[in-house]
Amino acid sequence: MDKYRAVIDMGSNSVRLVIYYEAAEGASYEVDNIKNTIRLNTFLNERNEIVEQGIAEVIRVLTQYRQLCEARAVSSVTGVATATVRKARNKEGFLRRIREVTGFSFRVLSGEEEAYYGYLAVVNSMCVTEGFTIDIGGASSELVRVSDRRLIESHSFPFGAVTLTRQFFQGEIPTMEELVALEKYITAQFTSYTWLRGKELPIVGMGGTVRNLAKIHQKMMRYPFASLHHYEMKKYQVDAVFHHLKDLSPMQMQGVEGLSKERADIVIAGIVIIKALLSYIGSERFIVSNKGLRDGVYMESRLKAKSGALVKDVIEEGIRALMIHYKVNVLHAQHVDYLCCTLFEQLATEGLHRYGTEERLLLSIAARLHDIGRTINLGEWQQHTFYLMVHVLLPGLTHKQRLLAALIASYKGSKRMQQLAASYESMITEGEQQMVEQLGALLLIGRALDRTESQQVSEVMLMRTSDAIMMHCRGNIDGRSLEAKTLEEHKKKFKKQFGFPLQIEWMKP
Amino acid sequence: MDKYRAVIDMGSNSVRLVIYYEAAEGASYEVDNIKNTIRLNTFLNERNEIVEQGIAEVIRVLTQYRQLCEARAVSSVTGVATATVRKARNKEGFLRRIREVTGFSFRVLSGEEEAYYGYLAVVNSMCVTEGFTIDIGGASSELVRVSDRRLIESHSFPFGAVTLTRQFFQGEIPTMEELVALEKYITAQFTSYTWLRGKELPIVGMGGTVRNLAKIHQKMMRYPFASLHHYEMKKYQVDAVFHHLKDLSPMQMQGVEGLSKERADIVIAGIVIIKALLSYIGSERFIVSNKGLRDGVYMESRLKAKSGALVKDVIEEGIRALMIHYKVNVLHAQHVDYLCCTLFEQLATEGLHRYGTEERLLLSIAARLHDIGRTINLGEWQQHTFYLMVHVLLPGLTHKQRLLAALIASYKGSKRMQQLAASYESMITEGEQQMVEQLGALLLIGRALDRTESQQVSEVMLMRTSDAIMMHCRGNIDGRSLEAKTLEEHKKKFKKQFGFPLQIEWMKP
Repeated sequence: MDKYRAVIDMGSNSVRLVIYYEAAEGASYEVDNIKNTIRLNTFLNERNEIVEQGIAEVIRVLTQYRQLCEARAVSSVTGVATATVRKARNKEGFLRRIREVTGFSFRVLSGEEEAYYGYLAVVNSMCVTEGFTIDIGGASSELVRVSDRRLIESHSFPFGAVTLTRQFFQGEIPTMEELVALEKYITAQFTSYTWLRGKELPIVGMGGTVRNLAKIHQKMMRYPFASLHHYEMKKYQVDAVFHHLKDLSPMQMQGVEGLSKERADIVIAGIVIIKALLSYIGSERFIVSNKGLRDGVYMESRLKAKSGALVKDVIEEGIRALMIHYKVNVLHAQHVDYLCCTLFEQLATEGLHRYGTEERLLLSIAARLHDIGRTINLGEWQQHTFYLMVHVLLPGLTHKQRLLAALIASYKGSKRMQQLAASYESMITEGEQQMVEQLGALLLIGRALDRTESQQVSEVMLMRTSDAIMMHCRGNIDGRSLEAKTLEEHKKKFKKQFGFPLQIEWMKP
Repeated sequence: MDKYRAVIDMGSNSVRLVIYYEAAEGASYEVDNIKNTIRLNTFLNERNEIVEQGIAEVIRVLTQYRQLCEARAVSSVTGVATATVRKARNKEGFLRRIREVTGFSFRVLSGEEEAYYGYLAVVNSMCVTEGFTIDIGGASSELVRVSDRRLIESHSFPFGAVTLTRQFFQGEIPTMEELVALEKYITAQFTSYTWLRGKELPIVGMGGTVRNLAKIHQKMMRYPFASLHHYEMKKYQVDAVFHHLKDLSPMQMQGVEGLSKERADIVIAGIVIIKALLSYIGSERFIVSNKGLRDGVYMESRLKAKSGALVKDVIEEGIRALMIHYKVNVLHAQHVDYLCCTLFEQLATEGLHRYGTEERLLLSIAARLHDIGRTINLGEWQQHTFYLMVHVLLPGLTHKQRLLAALIASYKGSKRMQQLAASYESMITEGEQQMVEQLGALLLIGRALDRTESQQVSEVMLMRTSDAIMMHCRGNIDGRSLEAKTLEEHKKKFKKQFGFPLQIEWMKP
């Protein structure tokens, strides 16, 4: 049964509701995502109690979320609360009031739990085996050391974008002294944690500060790929955004493309945390995760009934889910994958290309997803496949991998490929274009070999002769089959890409 | 239960298999569509028997189609045969052999039935109430007079693109005399049918000739909209394509963009049929239908269990199916539709626009489909909604209607709209762009009024004061609701589009 599940994340800066659609099998995806920047942290009084006005605000917002959940017939809502509630002396009464009025129950996460859920979201949606994660919140920041995909160290630091702004900045534009003092303070906090030292590993960031940083940078660069998740920035690029912002007045901040109005006043302090961490760790790579705490909470609730909270193979699981969601004929797709990858390896043996496991992975992804565009329209389905592969989240892949796999999957010929690639020119090298052409042609051959989608061709063997490539196809079909007819249409492209004519021999099993 | 259904159309030119995916509720769409140009008509001997070689060809092709159907677990296959089999003296033995070897049963359609199924496909996928349909096959052409969506006259003419080519053209390039003789012959056939006379009504065309004619013209015009169904051509444009093709050698024909290689030799004769009919009827408008005989057969098998073969309201049924397919919250979508259309009418009463039922329809379509892009990705979902509305078949709508509704549905602001519209510049006037901006802004207001998707606002009333538009909203919410907050974000756009600031008053029910 299809259903909807929701997570509410009561943070120190904002309260956010995410509603996920969840198919019985296959993909789950967000259908709604809404936040209210309440700044709960600012409703703590000097005795660390959430004051009445803050409680009223939260209840008001949650009442609206309740309406949304009911409208979508959400079957389960998981509420989690973080740093501010953790700190609040009146948290029990506060949460009881909320439960009584809105019906929502909240679990107060410890710093360690908060770190864990962020980590979980990252390792289940990216291929990160070694590195760090940081989740920058309003009043706390969670750091995790990931090794072999496991969480081996973690700590929740009691500062975030809201609290640091209030603590360190007096005026509307931070002074140089304030900025220096802030960075010094943050760095000092790191020193007790030896596991943060001297590792040149990538840092994966989460949270609103991180997303805004990436959006601003994408706008600055006119980045053509419409995706935040897995966006990668170098250290000097983080610095560039920081320098772009640090002297702006609040008015000027409002005009910064990519920056959310509600975050304009606290984004600088958030970015200083990232700068300090990159420097302290000595890392050059900062990778943005669009999945965070709430997704980790969701994944756990979804996966725990199964084999544990960790997805075994992020890319494979993502492909499987998409194949089901887009009604792909899975046996056909897998057989095309098998045929293509066999040809790929035999061509390598014959010295006709020098590609390795990376390109083989792209071919395999393309082979299995090439049909997804058919749900949009059978006319021009290749273009629709391209559109979907570029815009649907394919977890575990970098933007470049998604783009290249999409171009291979939708390959019809050089001209069409160049049209599709045109908007992404800055992301692809000439060598990569050539690779797409070659693997695209190979996929056309593989698809032709299973045109009846019924796995008639059980085996292919390539052999290079002096002036041609012989392809022996074993199966219950012959030169008059639909497979053979379709192959004919693509032989020219093969020759163009690999330099030799393709000759086909049909062999009985 | 979701399932697959197939139709095999054994025509005189080609044998085609179409596999349809069919959801228990909601949309059905083609997942595969494959043809073999056997030219069955050429396998008739002088005694009008299909010769052994022709039988073998058909069986070979159908065996492959059997594999495809099994691979897709197709639950029912409907086979129909047309003119050549109808004429064949040995049809019974022929069809028995086919049934024994391939398991497929075929029903031989009478000329009237053939005409009916083409008609059915058209009136169930287009808003055609008065006009003609013509289905040009290889050995017959079916003409129907449609009035009030009913078939009131029909006839199957015993000539088609294949038979006329063989009968009238000697060499590879038809001579002027041959072309004149052909058109004269066709026109003479029409004269016995008085219902064809002097009606300045549109003609809807089906079949390979028609699709190729349209594709060639779209390429000539660099038409930006990727859809054949509902493509409209003027009489002079049909003539232009004819003149473009008539003197080309077979070699040159192979280079014509949009023309299928397998149809190059018979397309001229097919186009002459269209020319003759347009002249004879005195019609200026030729509309292309991408749905034809096989779709009519499919629709009948799908719909007959229900209320009859005729879809009551083509546009409404199309919207309903898409809402279900793309998991739209239907109550929300319908409420946004209600709110938007109420505002639309009240603004008209206040003299703030002069739009009529056509624009109201576009707004209503946009209101109900605006959320469909969320299944692709919640990030940038408006862009995905636009992509889907432009590329998914929305039956009953012209290309311009689809494009305008898509722009309204995905409206976020002027700049984004212009980016999306850029590739379709030649299809939209400045006045239409302005209309999109106004109705787009209205949809933003309507969506905001149901931001919690729970129909809190039961009623809206607009009143124009001397310097503002007052909007009274009746419902169980107030100025601190999510609805109010979201409205705030769009008030500026309303003012920009309608010239007056929007003031909101919340009223209890």
